[in-house]
Amino acid sequence: MKNTPRTRRLAELTWQEFRDVVPQATDAVLLPVGTVEAHGVTGLGTDNTIPEAIAARIAEPVNALIAPTIPYGITRSLLAYPGSTSVSPETFERYVFEVAASLADTGFRRVVFLNGHGGNTGQLKDICFRLYREKKAYSLALDWWVLCAEETRTVYGHEGGHGGTDETGMVIAATPEMVRADEYRPDLAFQAPPGTTISPYPGSIILYDSDDGLPDFDPDKAGRLLDAVCSKVEATVIEVFRRWQEIR
Amino acid sequence: MKNTPRTRRLAELTWQEFRDVVPQATDAVLLPVGTVEAHGVTGLGTDNTIPEAIAARIAEPVNALIAPTIPYGITRSLLAYPGSTSVSPETFERYVFEVAASLADTGFRRVVFLNGHGGNTGQLKDICFRLYREKKAYSLALDWWVLCAEETRTVYGHEGGHGGTDETGMVIAATPEMVRADEYRPDLAFQAPPGTTISPYPGSIILYDSDDGLPDFDPDKAGRLLDAVCSKVEATVIEVFRRWQEIR
Amino acid sequence: MKNTPRTRRLAELTWQEFRDVVPQATDAVLLPVGTVEAHGVTGLGTDNTIPEAIAARIAEPVNALIAPTIPYGITRSLLAYPGSTSVSPETFERYVFEVAASLADTGFRRVVFLNGHGGNTGQLKDICFRLYREKKAYSLALDWWVLCAEETRTVYGHEGGHGGTDETGMVIAATPEMVRADEYRPDLAFQAPPGTTISPYPGSIILYDSDDGLPDFDPDKAGRLLDAVCSKVEATVIEVFRRWQEIR
Amino acid sequence: MKNTPRTRRLAELTWQEFRDVVPQATDAVLLPVGTVEAHGVTGLGTDNTIPEAIAARIAEPVNALIAPTIPYGITRSLLAYPGSTSVSPETFERYVFEVAASLADTGFRRVVFLNGHGGNTGQLKDICFRLYREKKAYSLALDWWVLCAEETRTVYGHEGGHGGTDETGMVIAATPEMVRADEYRPDLAFQAPPGTTISPYPGSIILYDSDDGLPDFDPDKAGRLLDAVCSKVEATVIEVFRRWQEIR
Amino acid sequence: MKNTPRTRRLAELTWQEFRDVVPQATDAVLLPVGTVEAHGVTGLGTDNTIPEAIAARIAEPVNALIAPTIPYGITRSLLAYPGSTSVSPETFERYVFEVAASLADTGFRRVVFLNGHGGNTGQLKDICFRLYREKKAYSLALDWWVLCAEETRTVYGHEGGHGGTDETGMVIAATPEMVRADEYRPDLAFQAPPGTTISPYPGSIILYDSDDGLPDFDPDKAGRLLDAVCSKVEATVIEVFRRWQEIR
Amino acid sequence: MKNTPRTRRLAELTWQEFRDVVPQATDAVLLPVGTVEAHGVTGLGTDNTIPEAIAARIAEPVNALIAPTIPYGITRSLLAYPGSTSVSPETFERYVFEVAASLADTGFRRVVFLNGHGGNTGQLKDICFRLYREKKAYSLALDWWVLCAEETRTVYGHEGGHGGTDETGMVIAATPEMVRADEYRPDLAFQAPPGTTISPYPGSIILYDSDDGLPDFDPDKAGRLLDAVCSKVEATVIEVFRRWQEIR
Repeated sequence: MKNTPRTRRLAELTWQEFRDVVPQATDAVLLPVGTVEAHGVTGLGTDNTIPEAIAARIAEPVNALIAPTIPYGITRSLLAYPGSTSVSPETFERYVFEVAASLADTGFRRVVFLNGHGGNTGQLKDICFRLYREKKAYSLALDWWVLCAEETRTVYGHEGGHGGTDETGMVIAATPEMVRADEYRPDLAFQAPPGTTISPYPGSIILYDSDDGLPDFDPDKAGRLLDAVCSKVEATVIEVFRRWQEIR
Repeated sequence: MKNTPRTRRLAELTWQEFRDVVPQATDAVLLPVGTVEAHGVTGLGTDNTIPEAIAARIAEPVNALIAPTIPYGITRSLLAYPGSTSVSPETFERYVFEVAASLADTGFRRVVFLNGHGGNTGQLKDICFRLYREKKAYSLALDWWVLCAEETRTVYGHEGGHGGTDETGMVIAATPEMVRADEYRPDLAFQAPPGTTISPYPGSIILYDSDDGLPDFDPDKAGRLLDAVCSKVEATVIEVFRRWQEIR
Repeated sequence: MKNTPRTRRLAELTWQEFRDVVPQATDAVLLPVGTVEAHGVTGLGTDNTIPEAIAARIAEPVNALIAPTIPYGITRSLLAYPGSTSVSPETFERYVFEVAASLADTGFRRVVFLNGHGGNTGQLKDICFRLYREKKAYSLALDWWVLCAEETRTVYGHEGGHGGTDETGMVIAATPEMVRADEYRPDLAFQAPPGTTISPYPGSIILYDSDDGLPDFDPDKAGRLLDAVCSKVEATVIEVFRRWQEIR
Repeated sequence: MKNTPRTRRLAELTWQEFRDVVPQATDAVLLPVGTVEAHGVTGLGTDNTIPEAIAARIAEPVNALIAPTIPYGITRSLLAYPGSTSVSPETFERYVFEVAASLADTGFRRVVFLNGHGGNTGQLKDICFRLYREKKAYSLALDWWVLCAEETRTVYGHEGGHGGTDETGMVIAATPEMVRADEYRPDLAFQAPPGTTISPYPGSIILYDSDDGLPDFDPDKAGRLLDAVCSKVEATVIEVFRRWQEIR
Repeated sequence: MKNTPRTRRLAELTWQEFRDVVPQATDAVLLPVGTVEAHGVTGLGTDNTIPEAIAARIAEPVNALIAPTIPYGITRSLLAYPGSTSVSPETFERYVFEVAASLADTGFRRVVFLNGHGGNTGQLKDICFRLYREKKAYSLALDWWVLCAEETRTVYGHEGGHGGTDETGMVIAATPEMVRADEYRPDLAFQAPPGTTISPYPGSIILYDSDDGLPDFDPDKAGRLLDAVCSKVEATVIEVFRRWQEIR
Repeated sequence: MKNTPRTRRLAELTWQEFRDVVPQATDAVLLPVGTVEAHGVTGLGTDNTIPEAIAARIAEPVNALIAPTIPYGITRSLLAYPGSTSVSPETFERYVFEVAASLADTGFRRVVFLNGHGGNTGQLKDICFRLYREKKAYSLALDWWVLCAEETRTVYGHEGGHGGTDETGMVIAATPEMVRADEYRPDLAFQAPPGTTISPYPGSIILYDSDDGLPDFDPDKAGRLLDAVCSKVEATVIEVFRRWQEIR
């Protein structure tokens, strides 16, 4: 198609270039959303880095642009850790909704939230329903670590946990300069006793279930995980786009 | 100082690294704030790119960390252009305040808003006052194009205007891949008649005064402008930090 | 009892007839609540039709009147489909609460919400607790498809899903003119990948679990399902009424 | 037209059938709105039954679909009578507006409120104006008993009143099983002294003017009234549609 | 330590005694929270009594003071039972948050909510996150019956249920004068059918799962349960305190 | 009366016992309300302990049950003292009103607030009026130290003051383990100059008038004060109950 964008990054396009590709060449945008929060031994920006890495890999095959990341989200139990930040749930929902609505107004009928942080999930769900109700925009919010639990198990033999197997693996593969394997100690991890809410959480690696796993610093496995996750996300987005096409 | 951070980018530090430098080695953070908006022939992300470039240059000499950019701001007169986005002033103020307050909570007593977009200025001013009132945090919001009007005149012989001389020059020097000089036509510019508010604005280069200037694509001048702007901003931040030191 | 109502439909009684039966002959009312929403190959009113059919069957044996159906509810993921409608959760909760409170004021101490739509469930739960707190009214909200999952399995060998096995079967038995079996194609169904919110949902038959089932157009099975569901709902309502009797 | 709907009842259409007729074959919908309230000797649902009967008669000639009735409205002076119910004016307006707005979103550009209850009139008027302002939808709210006062006089020699001549006649013709002529006593009627507001109203037949009339149980006259009302409403709707056509 | 408090009960200390122990000797406080609500055959104050008994047992070993109990919580489904009381969720959250925030202001950096009532759980969770965000206080909310399900199974062979095995056992051991075994009848228990909300709940013993158990009045087992629960809660609190110590 | 409750403490009754006594045997409840606040040399819980002691003495003769104490109130001028806590006036009013309203709903037509803390007085007054308006409940709020000023003067020769003569005497008699006479120093007391509001108050014994008195640690006088106060409160409650009886 002659209208293929010069770059997939919306921010790098001039408005004339944008005008020539949206919505004719594509009306889909990938919007990474994360937070700034402590993770075992990966950088505070882990929840932004991972969806950005996925976006970079899938933008071309799913034919979408990439909007700038919304980097500050809803941090709860790890807010006490040095470097963690948070906004309130209500403010997050307003800001993200207005950004997405504005993207819809400028021509995107499809918005894919690539979410990197579990604390944002509930608000993103509400935003999705509201985007159709108020803007007739189609949206997909995607928690990669839930969608790809199977992929994590395949590579590592067990599931993830916050700051654990899957997140650490993704960062090793995507932005290795953000990993400090030398700082790893097993007691960074903590599995909450049932029936408790603990704030702040006393461990920067959270094990949700007894079969969650600790970090594994093998770069080969990490590369395989990134590949598998990107493939799964890409296939899921393409399938949802295909189905939407039938009802548009 | 043994506590010098491995990198100036907050998001790339682990929480252990952050704990070892904030606030002991530094309690200052640079927070770039911009918007996604049409500019003559530079990318839609121009207002984010420029403060990010300044931050990268001054973080070391002013001894501060760099927080992730808040990329979606208050776009007004150019919202109708393809690719422009906006959030409401109230939502912007809530989101930016909460991010800055959270940075204060995690140890930064000084927050420098490196602002790239004139539509954000009023809200940032209110946020600054509120940050001290509620968090006892010291803050500085800085509109580089106003602070450095003299520098622009020195390099180009006249001032800037939205999407004009100074912004185009900064992008040419900082991220040349975001400039499409071949798309430039003089009639992209429009000088509003006095006493008018026009929405949408009928030109993506806005000349505010009769002596505002059109883009100049000379890369040498652009380099000189970037140097001059960064020096001026750096000196200004250092002077403000010094004065604050006297009253802390 | 000489006060047996001439008809079970509240709307068909004159106020004099109502005065003679409520609360003496009965102080229980069945209130069907649904929505107008796309379902695979059954009518847009499926979620209203089914609880109305159940109400018609059980009103006599449970000794209750039937109030007019509230036909517009909270549609979320299928709102984009042609003919779907929705009201906001807050408005739904206000309207349904006030209707039920008004029924309590006019003499019904027991209100049974026969709910036909999963999107209403959360609000109905809150309404139930509020009805006692504010009106001292006893209430029961009943999602027939959850209560009768066992019955669906018995008849069809697997469970339902939106617009799938159980809903289609109920409509075939209750209002066959609302079914268009000839429009059925297996790809109307879609099973959401884990970790995703998709709005609009790209399929008008939603499979929640891998063992949910597609529609089966056999009228005999449909008749058996309707019988089994009505028996189960009837027995449940009678049992709850009996237990309430002991604590009134 | 090949796209004539299989049935005029929106709720009985599948979404595929709806998609094939709205808006191509018609973009008009009839929405009956009433309340549940005491009327002299006709059923509590009188205000819903009458607009439903009118809708059934005119849907074909005016080429519109019929949406499910909103059965609970704003009952005021007769709320104290057994079986009467009410919602607050604010809640009614929110609910009805959101239903109508949702119908507009799914393809109806014209919404006809067939109103059966005087207590709803003010709110429906506000809803009409708001529907255009917010949804660009065309709407018509129609109080049949006001529009057709002339027809009532022609058939009975005098006008109606709540629960009196015209309403009783319409129910006799439309749903005779909802009439209990044997319960009729003249003192059910009350004519309020001028300058008074009485709550609750001490009579379930309200005579507004000295020439309002008491019920007449002659089925022939009732049939003639129903015919005359439906003709007048049909002609009115068609004329309004024709005029709208000129400005669309 | 010379600063060991004369008594663990905050209310019995003078302010001079308090000043000498908080925060130097301890900055942790146990805050029992419950409700006044019907339970099978134990007192209406069961949900306050149990956490008070736990607090009395663990205050010394975990080195904390005990604040006065907040005795009125959020009762929902059993509100209709004689003697049950409730406050609204919003008021509960405000009151408990302000009490805890005030405890933080007077020197406690750690607040342990010993919760006795499931209806409070959601609000306590929100309060925990807010306590850190607004007060930098560390908090732990603990539902003993969830944390100690294993202990209940060990002693009785099955789990609890409201007013069932575990709660009755705890009251028998802690405050036997609040138990009326002679009033026990098996039909006090009720297991809700799936897909239903019932308000009021028709049984003052609620069985959540089919393997929940009915009360067992054996005092030996009760004593063993209380011992096991207190040991488990004590160990959990100590472990969380230890982990917090590492990140403070 | 065969329905005399086994115990006067509501929390110790089962719901079946409660059902058998309320409202038949009594429909009156005593609700102690206080705060946690510094007092000269008596415990922080002084304002809860005293009304609890009064309740225990008068419940039988006035024929009322005793509800659990609301222990956290509105502390103002002494909030800065170690161990003092407070909730906001608005939150206090909401919480106490809802508790009392809920007691009214479960059968108490008479609620007696035994108040131990002057900071609560204004809000309790408003709550009393609202309880009748919204719940038709009769209520009496009683500040014992005002009601019994005469009794204090009789025993000690002068009046009380916060943490002074009367409060210290009551605690000596009721819960002597909460008194630390050895900590007493006359300069704990402060008499505010007229026309001043001082926050925090610079003394934990407040002398309101020139004839207020300092603590007197004589246990005999304390015992006489407690007797006199309980007699006066008892007589007052009985008289109010008698007068209410005439208008019920």
